[in-house]
Amino acid sequence: MALTSFTDRLVDAVEQKQSQLVVGLDPVLAQLPDEFASVDPPLAFERFCCGIVDAVAPHAVAVKPQSAFFEALGPDGVRVFAQVCDYARAAGLLVIADAKRGDIGSTARAYATAFIEPRGEAMPLADSLTVNPYLGRDSVEPFLDACRAHGAGIFCLVKTSNAGGADVQDVTLADGRPLWQHVAALVDEWGRELVGEAGLSAVGAVVGATYPREIAEARRLLPNAVFLLPGIGAQGGKPADVAAAFTADAASALLSASRSVIYAWRAGGGDYRTASAAEAERLAREVWAVSGR
Amino acid sequence: MALTSFTDRLVDAVEQKQSQLVVGLDPVLAQLPDEFASVDPPLAFERFCCGIVDAVAPHAVAVKPQSAFFEALGPDGVRVFAQVCDYARAAGLLVIADAKRGDIGSTARAYATAFIEPRGEAMPLADSLTVNPYLGRDSVEPFLDACRAHGAGIFCLVKTSNAGGADVQDVTLADGRPLWQHVAALVDEWGRELVGEAGLSAVGAVVGATYPREIAEARRLLPNAVFLLPGIGAQGGKPADVAAAFTADAASALLSASRSVIYAWRAGGGDYRTASAAEAERLAREVWAVSGR
Repeated sequence: MALTSFTDRLVDAVEQKQSQLVVGLDPVLAQLPDEFASVDPPLAFERFCCGIVDAVAPHAVAVKPQSAFFEALGPDGVRVFAQVCDYARAAGLLVIADAKRGDIGSTARAYATAFIEPRGEAMPLADSLTVNPYLGRDSVEPFLDACRAHGAGIFCLVKTSNAGGADVQDVTLADGRPLWQHVAALVDEWGRELVGEAGLSAVGAVVGATYPREIAEARRLLPNAVFLLPGIGAQGGKPADVAAAFTADAASALLSASRSVIYAWRAGGGDYRTASAAEAERLAREVWAVSGR
Repeated sequence: MALTSFTDRLVDAVEQKQSQLVVGLDPVLAQLPDEFASVDPPLAFERFCCGIVDAVAPHAVAVKPQSAFFEALGPDGVRVFAQVCDYARAAGLLVIADAKRGDIGSTARAYATAFIEPRGEAMPLADSLTVNPYLGRDSVEPFLDACRAHGAGIFCLVKTSNAGGADVQDVTLADGRPLWQHVAALVDEWGRELVGEAGLSAVGAVVGATYPREIAEARRLLPNAVFLLPGIGAQGGKPADVAAAFTADAASALLSASRSVIYAWRAGGGDYRTASAAEAERLAREVWAVSGR
């Protein structure tokens, strides 16, 4: 198999589906449909998430399973995480493992192995991984290796969607910038050698859709990064808020919605898959329009 | 069972064993003793780590299994991580899960469940968890809940042992401080309500043993925090470098050594358990003396 870069695969998927939607898989037992009430939790997670994957596959370019919710079920949950990743890939979706890992050299190496490198004969668990930049360049290097050697991608946290992120990310530096802008410049530097044919780097950035003004500034600092924008829906962000994230390239920004899509049935009733498919289709169209296509 | 705080349990263990040594469990297949060469990797990790636990239990107050190395083996590795945690606890050791988790509210909640809260009838996986502070106060709140409700502890990354940490942690703020000092002040604030009878907070701080000068400054900023000091041995730090980490309380700082203890047999030969026990005993004594006891 020829090695294609993460961004090349992403560009193809965005063009083909005319969508920049990423559906976050955040399963919580208490919120699953009634039909899962008496199912063993790991199996309930697997069936529910695979149902969502089937429902959103025509409308989304990727799913973003949140590792924490699976880890909360113990080793069986971690097994289901891998099964859901495999199932999503087979359904033609890219997989962004949302695990926000970050550690020093040899440990970061192990996380790269765990998430974005081939496992023996098997495909990597995910196409891309979210990464925490607090430990600096050498902690990110093993992930960059995986991008070079295996066509993986990463998304570094820059400006997160939560209010508390300001405690650290908005602190003012000696040159007047908030810290997150310094981190954005680092991420741009880390990603420069990994800019693919489409002009997009395998090193992307997480920027909260809840901060429209910051999105425009982040784009200026990170001209080649794919933005992963969480915070739409349950967290209050709106697709129109993220227009500034898009460059001329349709794949330059991805909108991630989790609870508003996977629990869409709670608002409108009916089968959860039907409700999720409808909400995913609606959101994907709205974002496509916002992106200026 | 009466709920005792993490620091109360720690103070007891330190006094009883006259040790502030934490042994990091960082298993890497290629580095295990020959006797594990033909053993299935998860089983090799389990046997090796349990062997280390037996060897160091008289000399260390805690083990610090590094989640990444277990995650790299997939779900079976995660199962072994839990088994090793249980085994260590049964051997009378505290368990510090080194997973450096950090995410927004509901997701951080799931990580707290995964690592430091009771799992149904079972004990929590670990007594304490390392936490990344980049996402701010609301991302740490679920872990503080676990400290309040279940006697857990956390160690927040402040100044990490790796050189690259400077890329973010040493950036100069408008008031002239490096960022890590701002983070230290936040960690002090987060931990203030969780100071136990011994005067130590359940919210501790990770400060690299590789930065002696910074350790003294960190102690000034964090008078009640237990310091977890990695970087001794393979990373170049020396026990004498960390004297400034200790307050009047013997349990105010913990020295963490990983490769130099668990792979001690590679230097001196012989049975790996015997070599680890000897190195753990030697280090524990050296640190005890440095701590001024």
